[in-house]
Amino acid sequence: MSLLNGVKIVEAANVITGPLAGMLLADLGADVLKVEAPSGDPFRRWEAESDDVRPAFAAYNRGKRSIGLNLKDDVGRSLFMELVASADVVIENSRPGVMDKLGVGWEALREVNPRLVYCYVSGMGTVGPDRDRPTFDAVAQAMSGLWSQFTDLAAPEPVGPPMADQLTGMYAAMSILAGLRHRDATGEGVRLEVSMLASCLAFQTAAVADVTIDGKVAGKTSRARSSQSYAFVGSDGKPFAVHLSTPQKFWHGLCRTVEMPDLAQDPRYAVKSARIAGYDELHELLARVFMTRPRDAWLARLAAEDVPAAPILTVEDAVDHPQVRAIDVIDRDGGPRLRGLVRSPVQVDGRHCASDRPPPLLGEDTAAVLDELGVSAAEQDRLGANGTVA
Amino acid sequence: MSLLNGVKIVEAANVITGPLAGMLLADLGADVLKVEAPSGDPFRRWEAESDDVRPAFAAYNRGKRSIGLNLKDDVGRSLFMELVASADVVIENSRPGVMDKLGVGWEALREVNPRLVYCYVSGMGTVGPDRDRPTFDAVAQAMSGLWSQFTDLAAPEPVGPPMADQLTGMYAAMSILAGLRHRDATGEGVRLEVSMLASCLAFQTAAVADVTIDGKVAGKTSRARSSQSYAFVGSDGKPFAVHLSTPQKFWHGLCRTVEMPDLAQDPRYAVKSARIAGYDELHELLARVFMTRPRDAWLARLAAEDVPAAPILTVEDAVDHPQVRAIDVIDRDGGPRLRGLVRSPVQVDGRHCASDRPPPLLGEDTAAVLDELGVSAAEQDRLGANGTVA
Repeated sequence: MSLLNGVKIVEAANVITGPLAGMLLADLGADVLKVEAPSGDPFRRWEAESDDVRPAFAAYNRGKRSIGLNLKDDVGRSLFMELVASADVVIENSRPGVMDKLGVGWEALREVNPRLVYCYVSGMGTVGPDRDRPTFDAVAQAMSGLWSQFTDLAAPEPVGPPMADQLTGMYAAMSILAGLRHRDATGEGVRLEVSMLASCLAFQTAAVADVTIDGKVAGKTSRARSSQSYAFVGSDGKPFAVHLSTPQKFWHGLCRTVEMPDLAQDPRYAVKSARIAGYDELHELLARVFMTRPRDAWLARLAAEDVPAAPILTVEDAVDHPQVRAIDVIDRDGGPRLRGLVRSPVQVDGRHCASDRPPPLLGEDTAAVLDELGVSAAEQDRLGANGTVA
Repeated sequence: MSLLNGVKIVEAANVITGPLAGMLLADLGADVLKVEAPSGDPFRRWEAESDDVRPAFAAYNRGKRSIGLNLKDDVGRSLFMELVASADVVIENSRPGVMDKLGVGWEALREVNPRLVYCYVSGMGTVGPDRDRPTFDAVAQAMSGLWSQFTDLAAPEPVGPPMADQLTGMYAAMSILAGLRHRDATGEGVRLEVSMLASCLAFQTAAVADVTIDGKVAGKTSRARSSQSYAFVGSDGKPFAVHLSTPQKFWHGLCRTVEMPDLAQDPRYAVKSARIAGYDELHELLARVFMTRPRDAWLARLAAEDVPAAPILTVEDAVDHPQVRAIDVIDRDGGPRLRGLVRSPVQVDGRHCASDRPPPLLGEDTAAVLDELGVSAAEQDRLGANGTVA
């Protein structure tokens, strides 16, 4: 089902933050037009110097149409304005001031479309001493403290997906939907902004409250200790997770699983606060026991005792896991340009929402969009020849 | 500004996933009523056995009202139905079937409110072999492959914030806003579902595409290598990040920073594909140079060369950083129950959205809500005395 039927989005955005916002909304049913420079979103060539759609680009751009349009050209700019005039939403993520200088900033756009929901995705925000610094994923993760929760600061390592980029894209999508509601209720457009820096801080809601309210500084394993999350390895070298959380029944189930009934009452670990204080010792003790049998034997026992546990899977094993197959969140049967991509995590009527439009080639929809704007075939040829469109 | 003016949400949800969705929408202006068991959301006592609002609870529950209501009691249930009848949204996150058994599942609720947007937050989804397993944060991270991107699988460690919980809450908030738009357009309510498992997979959009399309399995540092993110330590032991990304100008700026002009043309590193292949060697070479001066000296040079770089800050230092102070995303001057909490990452008119309602005490708004439902003072006393409300 298409929840966002009729919502028209112009995505003048590159790389990950803005494009992810556009894709999340496309999967929910919005009509998203990606406006690219005639040379294309640079992310197209992030993996390889090729005009093919590579997996990294596909992963952030399914469900969109594409037009190549030169905004530095007067005709290109006026075509852009025509697209914006009939759109509901514009997503933009250039460095601060770039679009204003081109004459297509918020003030210019609201003049042609007072009902526009405009979402500006920034790096560090648009005020403050660092507002103009180039903000890539690692920069926002580092400055916001988010990175400090994933690594030892004495020997730091960059890990994980592009979290700052992706969290920002998710918050931007959310902001756009709220902005649309405001627009529909009041008839007035709105300028929204979501920065990478603020997004990383918002995702640390608990860690920020811990330090500002209690003066406790969260590090790499703070959350694991307080939530009682553990990782172990079986005798076959395979890793698995146990999440004891708060209920005593999980602790008792774990003690039965490892056949150490006395442990349950051991004052060093009998209550959650003791298990938090003694996390390292308890982990070591259990790790020795868990090394004596293969992972699957332990997981079967843990499941029988209803203790929250799971194999720690590689991405390869995860996409093939029976439960992942059962919820049908990965496209297994779409055309070759959609197959293998993750659908929206949002389900309606038991099905994961997803656009059936594949990630576009650069300018795949240029002719169709120009037709819609009433540009003649001869004029389209001329615009293509002089590089206004691609 | 309140983007979601007039949106009424009933949050019958506990711990993190559903409550985070509720808070994100409250900060955007929705009227969120947290319906808790008379003993309260168990997360209130997650940090300490206390009736005080602790930072962890505050971090996911600002901006809401609270009523304690026993859904196992006929009167409690009928009061719940009255609340739902006049609401726009219900958020729920019990194990599958629990609310149905109580008679307050989707089918029952839509009968009293056919325009209801109902969001069910599940762990593993509602189909498949593992649908009934207790799904805590670590379980979803482990099963989905997400965890494998943050740790060595041979010596696994649980790190970071509760990512599975929080990503799910974010996607749930997005789904609700899309559902509201659908409801307003069609006049019909909708049942949405967001699972923790699907949320963790959706956040791995690039890693999933890499494995399904190219057969490449992303591990802990795959993204760092391909995006050219590096972490170093200065002579003062302080960590910092450099994100080279794709543009050659950043590579050349880095070579000037470390005063190694020949390095720029060194065939081992001269182009990005070579830097990806030689990531470990290049990291080691640069790490030795960066150990010769204090962090801030390097950051000043990197900034002068416009190379994306930043200190890797602790959460404590991040909340105090001039740029974080400048964007005003943390409440520094609200009342004592709001001070220190992060606002919404969404800005309208240059200000971060935030509810000015503090995280509620259990049942703080019970009397006011019952008054609104027309329950007499005498009846309220009776309901309180027999444990129907709290």
